[in-house]
Amino acid sequence: MNSYSFEELSIGRTESFDVTVTEDMMADFLKITKDVNPLHNDEDFAKEKGFASRVVYGHLTASFFSTLAGVYIPGEKCLIHEVAYKFTKPVYIGDELTVSGEIAERDERVRQLKIKVRIKRSSDNATVIRGTMTVGVLE
Amino acid sequence: MNSYSFEELSIGRTESFDVTVTEDMMADFLKITKDVNPLHNDEDFAKEKGFASRVVYGHLTASFFSTLAGVYIPGEKCLIHEVAYKFTKPVYIGDELTVSGEIAERDERVRQLKIKVRIKRSSDNATVIRGTMTVGVLE
Repeated sequence: MNSYSFEELSIGRTESFDVTVTEDMMADFLKITKDVNPLHNDEDFAKEKGFASRVVYGHLTASFFSTLAGVYIPGEKCLIHEVAYKFTKPVYIGDELTVSGEIAERDERVRQLKIKVRIKRSSDNATVIRGTMTVGVLE
Repeated sequence: MNSYSFEELSIGRTESFDVTVTEDMMADFLKITKDVNPLHNDEDFAKEKGFASRVVYGHLTASFFSTLAGVYIPGEKCLIHEVAYKFTKPVYIGDELTVSGEIAERDERVRQLKIKVRIKRSSDNATVIRGTMTVGVLE
């Protein structure tokens, strides 16, 4: 786990990691949320609606931004204030993803960073989510 | 599960449900994300930083909006396009939450809704997250 101080976190700093979405993640996310929506749980329904197979929960994919902020940038001293995400492509089970963030703004008065975030799929290099996180850096 | 058609989803329609955050949810979220940040995993660290105990992952609490959209409003025909959330208060394990959404805008051309969302804690009636979700309604 990184543990950057606010002083080390300059504009342009980037961090990333890779993760593969699994059946187990889908089952655990369903267990937490009880989101039984068929787009995520019923292969036939998803295909009927024009998707290749059941679609990974957008909020599951977005949860990797929790890891990005809490482990990588800023890491240990992180407190998430605000997020905004756009889901640009469906994600499927088995997809290999690269989760990345780059510091875009830095507000010294309140020790707050705006991080541009993005998740790309390895197989077709498509961006599946993009957005911003606003995070505080604890003392 | 609700299965509202776009025609039924008029401005002002609201839906809500209650959920209590558990230790198991925290463990499952850690399993999915590998977010080992100590604010969520180390009681002493969280207290040292001024919190009452370890803090529930913001993205875990936000995941209940997946359920709100996918099960309640619009329910079955939901496809989430975009979200924006502000984390306004720390959430703790055991907190009883009310997750709610109200349709604020409706775009017929693209069958898209903007839903104002909010999560309130029962014990002190505090809003812990607020924001918006933009969702499509499948045919």
